[in-house]
Order: sequence, then structure tokens, then C-alpha cells
Amino acid sequence: MRNILEHPEPLSGATYSAVELMPGDAQLLMMDQRLLPSEEKYLTLTRAVEVADAISRLVVRGAPAIGIAAAYGLVLAAREAPRDSGEFIESLRPAASALRRTRPTAVNLAWALDRMMRAACDAAALAPEVRVGLLAAEARAIHREDVAACVAMGKVGAAHVGDGATVLTHCNAGALATGGYGTALGVVRAARSQGKRVKVVACETRPVLQGARLTAWELSRDGFDVTLITDSMVAQLMRRGGVDLVVVGADRVARSGDVANKIGTYGVACLAHAHRIPFYVAAPWSTVDLACPDGAAIPIEQRHEDEVLSFAGAVVAPAGVRADNPAFDVTPARLVTALFTERGEAKPPSEETLAALAH
Amino acid sequence: MRNILEHPEPLSGATYSAVELMPGDAQLLMMDQRLLPSEEKYLTLTRAVEVADAISRLVVRGAPAIGIAAAYGLVLAAREAPRDSGEFIESLRPAASALRRTRPTAVNLAWALDRMMRAACDAAALAPEVRVGLLAAEARAIHREDVAACVAMGKVGAAHVGDGATVLTHCNAGALATGGYGTALGVVRAARSQGKRVKVVACETRPVLQGARLTAWELSRDGFDVTLITDSMVAQLMRRGGVDLVVVGADRVARSGDVANKIGTYGVACLAHAHRIPFYVAAPWSTVDLACPDGAAIPIEQRHEDEVLSFAGAVVAPAGVRADNPAFDVTPARLVTALFTERGEAKPPSEETLAALAH
Repeated sequence: MRNILEHPEPLSGATYSAVELMPGDAQLLMMDQRLLPSEEKYLTLTRAVEVADAISRLVVRGAPAIGIAAAYGLVLAAREAPRDSGEFIESLRPAASALRRTRPTAVNLAWALDRMMRAACDAAALAPEVRVGLLAAEARAIHREDVAACVAMGKVGAAHVGDGATVLTHCNAGALATGGYGTALGVVRAARSQGKRVKVVACETRPVLQGARLTAWELSRDGFDVTLITDSMVAQLMRRGGVDLVVVGADRVARSGDVANKIGTYGVACLAHAHRIPFYVAAPWSTVDLACPDGAAIPIEQRHEDEVLSFAGAVVAPAGVRADNPAFDVTPARLVTALFTERGEAKPPSEETLAALAH
Repeated sequence: MRNILEHPEPLSGATYSAVELMPGDAQLLMMDQRLLPSEEKYLTLTRAVEVADAISRLVVRGAPAIGIAAAYGLVLAAREAPRDSGEFIESLRPAASALRRTRPTAVNLAWALDRMMRAACDAAALAPEVRVGLLAAEARAIHREDVAACVAMGKVGAAHVGDGATVLTHCNAGALATGGYGTALGVVRAARSQGKRVKVVACETRPVLQGARLTAWELSRDGFDVTLITDSMVAQLMRRGGVDLVVVGADRVARSGDVANKIGTYGVACLAHAHRIPFYVAAPWSTVDLACPDGAAIPIEQRHEDEVLSFAGAVVAPAGVRADNPAFDVTPARLVTALFTERGEAKPPSEETLAALAH
């Protein structure tokens, strides 16, 4: 376990980061987010298989962050590849497949791996050290572009945040879920940097508690006013006027504008609609999957029921009881007031408004 | 810690019970529900102050069950009272106040204590042993009537449960929340005893996890098909057709038909409405407070933020983060398809339909 301070120049732009490739391109620092909020520790990964395992086990999570982690994973795979250019590409395929299989819902994973494989094909004929350097540069470009996209979409979204507003968010779509800065929390950061006072209500986000463990952690670390609620308190809080707008991230946006995001998001969207509260989604363009027609076509990851039946070693349900555990749900486009991207906003997201941003 | 088997004839009608007064009227067995689902143990309480403390700490919870527990608490207070009839009543008042103050939202607590104080006034002039015996008989009558009310409202509600139906419930409105049999779960039990196949989906009900710890426990113990979900999964499950009807309990029903119940109930009601799923409330008439005009007049208990900041004993949020923790919310009458009581159903609950049942 290491500390982020060992890295001379984290691309996250913060004093913490989900993932950072060390100079030399041989070591990937990855914060073990399972330990938060108690401990801030970084694993040192040197092989693609370790990266795939870490993504599966939620050491790193968040659609943009796992895309970046997978890109770095392919850099580590390239270091072990044979000299021959044909064998080089063939040797990367199983690593790419292993990384791709880890989480099915977030499209950023496939997007980043496809981009890295194209870069690998372009570099295949070059000397091994050069190839690795080029792939590392490509992965760092993906990382830098993601941070830049977050900053850009933050500005787009912040235009909808009034001074003194209370923003409700679900799960963690922050610096820890991205290359840095965050998507939904990027909107909050941008609003503050425009001089607006902003408060955040974080849903704890069972079963993995990303809201309690991660969103509350990064917002309090960065000096924001954050209040934690259980997921069951959203409706009552909205009813008594405690929420001005909702901003969440996304794991995949279909061509129709339907949005897959952490389980519970759809319920928050329904409740926002019932209480006439704007419901916004912030996501980089890499999360938009124009090849996917609508929400019904988005694969929803089912995770192990133990995440629901227990927590932190404590069993919360009697032996023999079954649990359901879909990790994501789909919010239909009609419930989304606007989608914020680094290319501008799709208001509301639809085939037409997304097509307009695509060009 | 004892076992329910030490009681010769539990009024709950089951092999477990929230509270039972032992023969001799000097010992109250109370299941420590905080230990479920891991352990099934009973505390032996001999003083009213212990009963008040147990209610505050959620050893026993559920509106009808805490009403019954408070009634038994007053029996224990009567055992310690002075011989003189005037002093007898005066000595009961602080005990009744202490019991009444424990939980503000459930009206059953005040209802049971008022009934016990009337019985105490009637018995004040009698010999101490006779007085205690009469109060014990009154408390046992409250207990027996509650079980009978649950069975009766179960039949009323079961008429709305189709063969093969999946019932979603929030929190625990079962045998553990009542004298026995349950309100919402009484409807499920009645449906099964009519030969209907019925499945239950239990929301875990953060922060105290009554759904995971208690509803899943009593339903699996009694051989029902129960699946646990996090509170955040309700909307998605409804959208994919996995819920035929919702049945919940209540802590107080106002004259307008507005219903206070465990935090999260209002959100479930909004989601049922959005998905055109019937939303039913089952509660004994002792939960109906015709003196309370509407939901806005129902006091909502705020509990300590530590219940939200930790999960099953493990801290889940960073130090210094605040949390909100209202224990109940109010569902407006317009979202309630029908209220089931032992007197029949109020469909929908309103000043008119409740008045019709009142006579």
C-alpha cells in the first residue's frame, strides 16, 4: 500500500486520485476505494490481470474511472508482450477481453479498450519500448481528456445551479469515479468556482454505499457542505422542499437518451418528476453509446446477493433468505431534464439532441 | 436472557412474540429485536422505567407492539405503587409520562396508556393485589384485541391479494411489530391461509434495517417465500413488473387519511402511483387518530444521526459529515388505495370513509 504523494504529478489535479500511472509506465497506482472512508491507500498494480481483478472487486469503480484503469491495464499488458508485431497484438487481446468482461454496463470500458487497441495496432511494428511509450501516452491522453471533459461539462451544468442551491446526488459521480474533478460532482465544483454557494445531499447508495463512503468523503475533504441521507429519505426531503435539483452521473446513455446508472437512480428520477424538481445527468461523451438504441438494450450487471445480505462482515439478514442485486437501473429519457456533456447539453436527451452533439 | 418457551401460553399465538407478560404479572418477557436475525433472546423486565428504556432503544418497536409494551409497563408500575388510592394514581402518572415520551409518532402508545390510566382510575379504590390483577387483565385484553384485530384486518386485506401475487412491503409490520400475526404481514398470512400462493419482497429499510433483520426473519421462519432488496431497488422492480401490490403498516393515520409510517414509505407510495400499482395500508383502529386533522399535524420523530452514519455497527461515512434521520414520513391519503382495519376498509382513506368506520 502506498500514498498518492509518491506520484510526482497526478493527472487528477487533486491530492487524491482513482488511478495514476507512475513515470516509467510500469506501475499503476490505484486507490483501494473499498477502504474508504477509513483509509486512503493505493495499491501498486503491475499486470493487466491485476487491474481486471481490481475492477471486478470494486477497488476502482465509476464508468470513466474504470475506462481509464482498463486503458492503463493494457499498457501493463503491452510490457509483457512478445517483440513480434503480430504476436504483440494477439497477446493483447486476452488482456483486453479480461478487462472488458469485468463490468458489462459501463460503456466507457469498451470505449477505452477499443481506442487502446487501435493505438496498439498503429504501434505494433515499432520497437517494444517505443510501443509501450506510445500506449502509455494514449492512456494518459484518455485520462487527461476525461478530466478536461469533466471540467467542461461542469461549466455546462453549473449554469443550471442557482446561488444557494441544494443539489441531491446518488452514488458517487465525483473525482473518485473519473480521471478527476467528477461528472455530477464536477457540476458542483464548477458552481462553487463560479462563486455560488452550494450544498449537497448525498444518498448513501446501498448496497455498496458509494454515497456514504465516497461522495461524502471527497466532498468533505474538499470543503463542501454535505449531508448524508439513506436512499429511503429522498421522497420526504423533496416533499419538504429540501432539494432544488438532482445531478447524477451515468454508466451508459443510449441513442434514445435513456440513461443507465447506479441502482436507485431511476427511483430518484421518478420522485424528482413527481415533485417537479429538475433531474440532470452529467457524463462525458465517451459514456454515450449511439450504437445502443435504448435502455432495454443496455446490459444490467447482476452482482452477488451477499452485497445486500451483509455489510462489512455483519450479516443483516437471516440465513437462507435470498436477495436481488441488480447493480444498475435505467432511467427513461422522458424523466431527464437535460444531459450535460463536454460538448454541451442535450435538453432533453433524445435521438435528435444527441445527434446534434455528435457532429 | 430467556426463551419464549418459558412462557406457558404466549398471546402472540406463535412460537415467538414481541412481548408477553408472565403469569404472576411481575415479569415482562420482551424479545430484544436489536439482536435479530442472529439471536432470538428475551429480556426480563420488572420495572416500568426498564420498559420505557427498551422502547426508546428499539428493543421493541412497531406501533401496536409498543402500545402493548407500554400497557404492560404500567402493570409493572402498579406493583410498586402506594396502597392509598389517590397516591396510587399519582404514582402511575410519571411512569405513564416516561412511557409516552419514548416515541412521539405512533399514536398507539398514547392510546394504550390512556386506556390503562382509565382502568387504573376505576381500580384505584381496590386492594393492591386486585388492582394489579385488573390492570394486568386490561393490558392482556389490549394484547389479545390487537392480535384479533390483525387477524380481522388480514382477512379484509387478503381479498385484494390474488393467487400467485407478489407483495412488496417496507419496514416490519409483522408479528414482531404487533401483539402477534401482524398488520401488513397479517394480510400476507391471511392470503396464505386462504390457500393463495403469495411471495413477499421485503425492502431492507435503512437505517435500522427492520426489513432485512425482522421481516425477512419472521417470514422465512414461518415458511414464506421472501426476497430481500435494498430500498433503492423498489422503482426498478416495479418497472419490470415484479410487484403486484404494496402493503405496509402505519404509526398513525390522521382524520384526513394521511398515513405516517417508517421513513421511505412515502417514496414507495409515489413509486407505486407512478407504476399504477395498488398501495395499501393495514393498521388497527387504535392507530387511527381522529383528533389529528392531517399529516402535517403528526409529530415526526428525529433520531440520532449515528443510525445513518453507521451500518450494522460499522462506520460508513467520514468523520465530521452530518446526516439527516427522520424516523417516519407521511404519505398523503391520495396515494393510498385503501386502508385495511379490523372494522373493514376505508377505500380510499378520507374523513368520510374513516367516519363511516368510526361508528
